[in-house]
Amino acid sequence: MNILYVYAHPNPESLNHLLKQQAVDFFAGNNIHVSYSDLYADHFNAVASWHDFDSEIKQPQYMLAQQKAYAENKLTADIESEIKKITAANHIILQFPLWWFSTPAILKGWFDRVLVKGFAYDTGKIFDAGLLKGKTASLTVTTQSPESAYQINGVHHAGIDTFLHHIQHTLCFSGIEMLPPYVIYGAAEMNAEREEKIKEEYKRYLENIVKK
Amino acid sequence: MNILYVYAHPNPESLNHLLKQQAVDFFAGNNIHVSYSDLYADHFNAVASWHDFDSEIKQPQYMLAQQKAYAENKLTADIESEIKKITAANHIILQFPLWWFSTPAILKGWFDRVLVKGFAYDTGKIFDAGLLKGKTASLTVTTQSPESAYQINGVHHAGIDTFLHHIQHTLCFSGIEMLPPYVIYGAAEMNAEREEKIKEEYKRYLENIVKK
Repeated sequence: MNILYVYAHPNPESLNHLLKQQAVDFFAGNNIHVSYSDLYADHFNAVASWHDFDSEIKQPQYMLAQQKAYAENKLTADIESEIKKITAANHIILQFPLWWFSTPAILKGWFDRVLVKGFAYDTGKIFDAGLLKGKTASLTVTTQSPESAYQINGVHHAGIDTFLHHIQHTLCFSGIEMLPPYVIYGAAEMNAEREEKIKEEYKRYLENIVKK
Repeated sequence: MNILYVYAHPNPESLNHLLKQQAVDFFAGNNIHVSYSDLYADHFNAVASWHDFDSEIKQPQYMLAQQKAYAENKLTADIESEIKKITAANHIILQFPLWWFSTPAILKGWFDRVLVKGFAYDTGKIFDAGLLKGKTASLTVTTQSPESAYQINGVHHAGIDTFLHHIQHTLCFSGIEMLPPYVIYGAAEMNAEREEKIKEEYKRYLENIVKK
């Protein structure tokens, strides 16, 4: 088992940080090999552009420029590093707060810059034939709204899966199999008792992922 | 009529740039007042963090820190500038390429950093009671996949609305009414004839928005 843990939260005093620390302790205690991409701590560049290539790529479409740069080993070191981590991983965990019904921009930038054509997928090599086939992934997500908001009769008029769909579809597109997410609703409504319960729950969730 | 045109594409040689130029010409030719936020050209900072406040905000949750900074006029100038443009606008157009079934990260960062609690929405002031009520918005979107891919029987197993949902929901959450999007499927498959047709179509689409 080789885990890649991608973490996107700006605040070291947050519930997200506590959960991440719980994961760090769990993996260390069980001798599970894990790489971390702490996007805020790493000051990960969120913005895809032609600066993502070490030397000039003459290709006006960014996606095709990425493909060419990957083939010619011209991607910048930060992107290459993420690609190596993904390649080595059997399972990828993405942990983030749901901001505006999606990932924080820094994690969206990770998708935009790292899931390169030729590496993650290719012409005719998507979904079941995706280049990352054989890997699994899962989402650890906190929301502001309570669980009652994510119901067909709730404020958002749909379950959380509706809002995670574009994210899970992105990973599936590259051939990755999605395991069920771990969602903490109403994360701002916290007290010591609930926090302890969540830490225990998350540990059991990770145990199940590792067993798979 | 006062338009805010938010544009998120890195390449001045792209179809997106051509469409944006078509919009610029259309608005200029019809004496319509329009502000532009060209996120790539402006080097817009995509990453929400405590650097978004001019002076220290002691509040560990980013969303609440934003709210406090807005109330105390402590948001950085780039955010304040976007807030002023939104305030002045009757209609907001967001133009972007669909990257990984969502906006480019730079536009996601615009949502994260600019749609501040207390400005765009507040406790109990969402959707029909959202603070941006009375404004309309629309999406101008290009996709890589052809239209046939965005069908229930197509590669993506769902229509484009499924993938635009989290974006439209974000704007609706703040009380903005969404007008139908303008979607250009298979944007990489272009020739002079199709390009001319799209330019004409886009002009008519903008005419309809302005008439509303």
